[in-house]
Amino acid sequence: MAAPCTWLQLHRTVRFGDTDAAGVMHFHQLLRWCHEAYEESLQRFGIEPAALFPTPQHRPEVALPIVHCRADYRRPLVVGDELGIVLAPTRLDPSGFEVAYRFNLDGEEAARGLTRHLAIKVTNRQRCPLPEPMQRWLEAASLGAGVQPL
Amino acid sequence: MAAPCTWLQLHRTVRFGDTDAAGVMHFHQLLRWCHEAYEESLQRFGIEPAALFPTPQHRPEVALPIVHCRADYRRPLVVGDELGIVLAPTRLDPSGFEVAYRFNLDGEEAARGLTRHLAIKVTNRQRCPLPEPMQRWLEAASLGAGVQPL
Amino acid sequence: MAAPCTWLQLHRTVRFGDTDAAGVMHFHQLLRWCHEAYEESLQRFGIEPAALFPTPQHRPEVALPIVHCRADYRRPLVVGDELGIVLAPTRLDPSGFEVAYRFNLDGEEAARGLTRHLAIKVTNRQRCPLPEPMQRWLEAASLGAGVQPL
Amino acid sequence: MAAPCTWLQLHRTVRFGDTDAAGVMHFHQLLRWCHEAYEESLQRFGIEPAALFPTPQHRPEVALPIVHCRADYRRPLVVGDELGIVLAPTRLDPSGFEVAYRFNLDGEEAARGLTRHLAIKVTNRQRCPLPEPMQRWLEAASLGAGVQPL
Repeated sequence: MAAPCTWLQLHRTVRFGDTDAAGVMHFHQLLRWCHEAYEESLQRFGIEPAALFPTPQHRPEVALPIVHCRADYRRPLVVGDELGIVLAPTRLDPSGFEVAYRFNLDGEEAARGLTRHLAIKVTNRQRCPLPEPMQRWLEAASLGAGVQPL
Repeated sequence: MAAPCTWLQLHRTVRFGDTDAAGVMHFHQLLRWCHEAYEESLQRFGIEPAALFPTPQHRPEVALPIVHCRADYRRPLVVGDELGIVLAPTRLDPSGFEVAYRFNLDGEEAARGLTRHLAIKVTNRQRCPLPEPMQRWLEAASLGAGVQPL
Repeated sequence: MAAPCTWLQLHRTVRFGDTDAAGVMHFHQLLRWCHEAYEESLQRFGIEPAALFPTPQHRPEVALPIVHCRADYRRPLVVGDELGIVLAPTRLDPSGFEVAYRFNLDGEEAARGLTRHLAIKVTNRQRCPLPEPMQRWLEAASLGAGVQPL
Repeated sequence: MAAPCTWLQLHRTVRFGDTDAAGVMHFHQLLRWCHEAYEESLQRFGIEPAALFPTPQHRPEVALPIVHCRADYRRPLVVGDELGIVLAPTRLDPSGFEVAYRFNLDGEEAARGLTRHLAIKVTNRQRCPLPEPMQRWLEAASLGAGVQPL
């Protein structure tokens, strides 16, 4: 139940703009939270965002588009709710990985998310090996609690 | 390939704000498009939005929260892409239904989405029968091409 | 009250995901609507989106970032509201323009928006003349009702 | 340059989903950041979100809708940029206030935002005095650096 390390256990507060007229979190915001948690985890682990994500100054040769995502919603979330987020990344094959996200509120699971990513060369959009920093993040996550970030 | 009727076959253009720095549609926007297509379909079928969705003046007794969603991405989508959207709603049980969404670009499938909904009473969040307008929409969709909107 | 032409008078329906827990449109969605209306207007006028907005295959030499925006909210907007949007673009100088947006509901003004844009060269981010298609759109808008789209 | 206190000086990292195909932050995300900073400031000051924002269980009698907002963009922001946010709230009259937001990157101003709010009774949407917690937050902000949160 305990997360392996600080770069796989994050926090987030539900904000007013995340809700809809039913008074609770609007469903697709959760997928945004997933991707932001994934980015935050990489950064806490020690990987510079620009090493994996493009900027006008630098476009990495490999992109990591999402080919599948899903989410399950178990409890309504309201403004001010303070969520724990536990990430569980898994390497699927030499060019693919997925990240499972568990959102906890007051010690109970409130929602789950999953994003599946494929490494492709930006030039021809053909699949290719995962970038080295991503491999390190996945390997460290698979080793569990003892691994410290870079 | 042809959709059964005009209220299950919609269109949408990818806008600049839907993209990210990789130059293509950012994944979670697709889930927003799914819900907006579902709302547009209901409206074209003849159901007033306020019959199903809350406003400050009127809160329906039954809410239809999403309990599961997912999406698959097959082709990159860029600004200006004109998408066809085909909706396939299915009743699952007396209090649940799902909607499958196929996004087509130039005659090829570019992405798929799915939202699964559960009818609950707003007062106690217990599951309950689907509201009558939703039952009519689901039934008409199951009958296929011959059904005209209200 | 009448808009000059079809490419400056658009329509939009408020969707559930545009609202927040107060039951009304969440304020920053209006700025998204403004940009989407601006893109739709350009497209209706006959300008291909890829002529002005970047895709992975083609990056225009000139970008048109927003340097200022603002909005005024006069009436609450709820799910299902069908809005008329009237655009009023104005050239400010050889490298700048702004677009004013009026959102009408049932014949009354519900909100206003404004976006101010600056033409810059992508390579060095220095200001430069507006791209030729943008100049045509601005000129046509200034001539008013009689101008037909391309 | 130094902010008066920790509840008026916040931080935020630009995420991939905040960018568009030009590679930089998409303009309307900044307004979302403004509102989230305002909520975070209130919470750090000691005000429960549910005291001001509605949930399905509790709807405050007074709402604080935004009647005007604006933003100025001075520098492009890219994924991974770590921003400082300084809030400057000001009471305008018994029922209105505004919050100015300055976004700093590497010690330079990258953008500014402003939101203007009006207190209204939820039942009749007529203007009314600001809720007491909001008055305390505004007063404390006006007193400057020495004030500690609740």
